[in-house]
Amino acid sequence: MNPKTQKALVVLSGGQDSTTCLYWALQRFGRGNVSAVTFDYGQRHRIELDCARKIAALAGVPQTVLPIDTFAAIGGNALTDAAIAPQQGGNADESTLPNTFVPGRNLIFLTFAAALAYTRGEAHIVTGVAQTDYSGYPDCRENTLKALELAIRLGMDAPLTLHAPLMYMSKAETVRLAQEVGAMEALAWSHTCYNGAVPPCGECDSCRLRARGFAEAGVADPLVERTARS
Amino acid sequence: MNPKTQKALVVLSGGQDSTTCLYWALQRFGRGNVSAVTFDYGQRHRIELDCARKIAALAGVPQTVLPIDTFAAIGGNALTDAAIAPQQGGNADESTLPNTFVPGRNLIFLTFAAALAYTRGEAHIVTGVAQTDYSGYPDCRENTLKALELAIRLGMDAPLTLHAPLMYMSKAETVRLAQEVGAMEALAWSHTCYNGAVPPCGECDSCRLRARGFAEAGVADPLVERTARS
Repeated sequence: MNPKTQKALVVLSGGQDSTTCLYWALQRFGRGNVSAVTFDYGQRHRIELDCARKIAALAGVPQTVLPIDTFAAIGGNALTDAAIAPQQGGNADESTLPNTFVPGRNLIFLTFAAALAYTRGEAHIVTGVAQTDYSGYPDCRENTLKALELAIRLGMDAPLTLHAPLMYMSKAETVRLAQEVGAMEALAWSHTCYNGAVPPCGECDSCRLRARGFAEAGVADPLVERTARS
Repeated sequence: MNPKTQKALVVLSGGQDSTTCLYWALQRFGRGNVSAVTFDYGQRHRIELDCARKIAALAGVPQTVLPIDTFAAIGGNALTDAAIAPQQGGNADESTLPNTFVPGRNLIFLTFAAALAYTRGEAHIVTGVAQTDYSGYPDCRENTLKALELAIRLGMDAPLTLHAPLMYMSKAETVRLAQEVGAMEALAWSHTCYNGAVPPCGECDSCRLRARGFAEAGVADPLVERTARS
């Protein structure tokens, strides 16, 4: 089977990892075979949606924005609940998950992506989740994805495949992959900061993780360069 | 472990099967340990939501209604897309699923139920899906549920259990179970008809399946009796 004849749907949040995966998918499946889905789930920082839109346009990829109003109705986490501030610097109590954990978020994103792919005849779903730097999120781990892939295949009776090309990469390796697949221009418009700041705050866990990756790869972050210039 | 000390969340659609499961859960987990979640996902027949509300009240169980606006945005099925009429009498082409199949619906319902249960410390999720009469829906099968349970446990890092007490029951056995667990009064307010009719149309696949179950069990359907009286 020639993968270039198959269609892929990339879950595009507008962050560094999913942006890199979008370009990885373009290289692997070929231009014209890749589309993107972005979830509008009540995230604290609406700027993520603008970034995803801009990046899909830069990549020349059709994008579907799907609403999910359910997480906000469930509440209880810092990403969709305005009354809760995101935790900084890891957890005070390491036995619990950070309060930025939205239970089931990736399970839901990938299942809706699979439902959309099913209706459009796309066989491949690509996600930017990574186990290496998974920050305490169990739904970013390989074993979760494998179990979910099975549930989706059985539940939709369709040969859908979940791809997580960054799963075992360090942030530095992800930066090098972005260079290889031509994602650097788009990364200048990607979003990472938990505080929603542009230029990025540089202080939150998410900014630090990103900065460390670029530093270790010996590459300047195009987002930092672009926003420092402007 | 005494199951009566644990809490359960029942996915209550307002139909015959989930209503029966609600009373099964009350018997198994004990009054005070059971709550219900109903999804408002743009279903064609809003009467289902009224039925679920009425039944939760009759059972004395707290009910949460969660919105899901995503299926309608994906479109392409007869249950949430007003432009598509539900198929009757099975599929013309048996190799395809009926157009009432909403891809991933049960996967999504159970994952959101698990997310809600997670935030409230409920360990058990109960669903009325059944493999015996599964009508071509692959997400009602045991293997799908087992894979999904694993994905949820791994993805939320929590010992959540999915229960599907009707999985291998015939419709007649489900009627007998409803008698055993005291669900008959509530079943007078349950909803099944694909055409959304009250009294039930008696013609659609869903009405016929229900009628056959009551007939085989030798029991009068309290819904038919109530609506014939009124």
